[in-house]
Amino acid sequence: MSYLDRIRPCHSWHPENYRPFIVDAAGAAPLGWVQHDFARRLEDFPQVFEVSDKAVVLPARFGGFESRSAELEEVLRKLHGSGEIPRWRGEDYGICRRWGEDLLFKMERAAVPLFGLPAFGVHVNGYVQTADGPQLWVGRRAKDKAVAPGKFDHLVAGGQPYGLSLLDNVIKEAAEEASVPAKLAASAKPVGALRYFCGRPEGQRNDVLFCFDLELPADFQPFPGDGEVEEFFLWPMERVLERLHDSDDFKFNVALVNLHFALRHGVLTPDGEPEYQAIVEGLAGRFED
Amino acid sequence: MSYLDRIRPCHSWHPENYRPFIVDAAGAAPLGWVQHDFARRLEDFPQVFEVSDKAVVLPARFGGFESRSAELEEVLRKLHGSGEIPRWRGEDYGICRRWGEDLLFKMERAAVPLFGLPAFGVHVNGYVQTADGPQLWVGRRAKDKAVAPGKFDHLVAGGQPYGLSLLDNVIKEAAEEASVPAKLAASAKPVGALRYFCGRPEGQRNDVLFCFDLELPADFQPFPGDGEVEEFFLWPMERVLERLHDSDDFKFNVALVNLHFALRHGVLTPDGEPEYQAIVEGLAGRFED
Repeated sequence: MSYLDRIRPCHSWHPENYRPFIVDAAGAAPLGWVQHDFARRLEDFPQVFEVSDKAVVLPARFGGFESRSAELEEVLRKLHGSGEIPRWRGEDYGICRRWGEDLLFKMERAAVPLFGLPAFGVHVNGYVQTADGPQLWVGRRAKDKAVAPGKFDHLVAGGQPYGLSLLDNVIKEAAEEASVPAKLAASAKPVGALRYFCGRPEGQRNDVLFCFDLELPADFQPFPGDGEVEEFFLWPMERVLERLHDSDDFKFNVALVNLHFALRHGVLTPDGEPEYQAIVEGLAGRFED
Repeated sequence: MSYLDRIRPCHSWHPENYRPFIVDAAGAAPLGWVQHDFARRLEDFPQVFEVSDKAVVLPARFGGFESRSAELEEVLRKLHGSGEIPRWRGEDYGICRRWGEDLLFKMERAAVPLFGLPAFGVHVNGYVQTADGPQLWVGRRAKDKAVAPGKFDHLVAGGQPYGLSLLDNVIKEAAEEASVPAKLAASAKPVGALRYFCGRPEGQRNDVLFCFDLELPADFQPFPGDGEVEEFFLWPMERVLERLHDSDDFKFNVALVNLHFALRHGVLTPDGEPEYQAIVEGLAGRFED
């Protein structure tokens, strides 16, 4: 096994299974990717989508953010009713090509991967600095989670809902998932971002993860708040790296963020780790074989 | 002006001006890129290179590292004699496709960009942690330097010579360039790497920069050792970012490493910097326009 076995699947997809989703208001470049089967379902809504063999287009005739969002929601609720979108989360994502740009529309979270649209999230590594290097708080996801049940996770992570700043989302999720006081959570430091694009059971993930480091006092003890995580462990980085290297026990995208953490904190070193350059390039979505 | 104006040029080249340099012992994928004019000069050495319109090939018949290095050196010395390689540095780089792999040969440093071969370097940001965030030591390069005279630079940076570990190179360069004691320099922490590929006056740069953070005591005062740098300033990151944003005053690749520093230290934030995602992707060599 290799660290690269964790990275490659996050950049793996089969373009032949998809057609571009073009939002006219955002230009001719595809904003998302739709599987052919789902594209054929969308043919039932010609008043909203222009579906051809080559692409699914959301035409520019829908005025702006509000009307575009309302038209899409009507379609998605019908698709939920007919079982095409089985799990309705009741949480909207704001959709744009790049973080910080004007939003084109908002969309029920569960539908976003079906359209392969850009989605954003916050991934917070809580850690304790020791004389032997950082120790990382690792959560074990509840066994009844729909996505990645029982896998290892960060102290705090969550999709980015419409209408919040990233840091406000960190503070909210930190309270809900790990009972971290708001003042402590607010000291989380943004340390970069990771982008990946991959096919997953839930659809096409086209994600940007905003990574945060939250340094915690040695006596801080997180505890599960909302039942997303069952329990938390404080692990030396060597143990984190061993599990990353030898197993799939970390949730797929958590592995990326933890390798990024190990690089930034000098736990993996270019003099000591033979795959260092390949890990750096892989996290950037670049592979040479 | 924009931070992206610093990043884009580092990923800009014109493939039509080059042909691949293929080293048979390293497989069929190009290891480097040679400008057409220089390729025609290499036609004078048919015993070493197979030159065609499509590629320059170093055939597998040269046994191993030592004989390959010796054959190449003989050619390069002749090209230096005839003025094709004006500035002979007398320092060898070890050549491989990726850092950590077995070396294929060593090559006079000045020739490496003429072949567009992978080169490695260490870039060390010396900084002082303050209550208002990190302050960065900035050097001004001597006005008589061949490359980037008068530009702003790191506390310590240098190409990676054959036969040293990266950290040993950090320690050596830190003593030479900024009079940093070895014990202090040895505390430099590897924090990642940046790869870029661009055409420059000296040839094709195909570089991997290993980034290091060196936290310094507030009372530490570097001073120029070998004359590479004229003087050092301790700047708040706001001032560093302002110069990065509004000018070309930093050496081209130093700008990349300093933006990477600003991301990792939370000086640029995704809630505050509209170009955050574009900067992250640009540093990874990915651009969407």
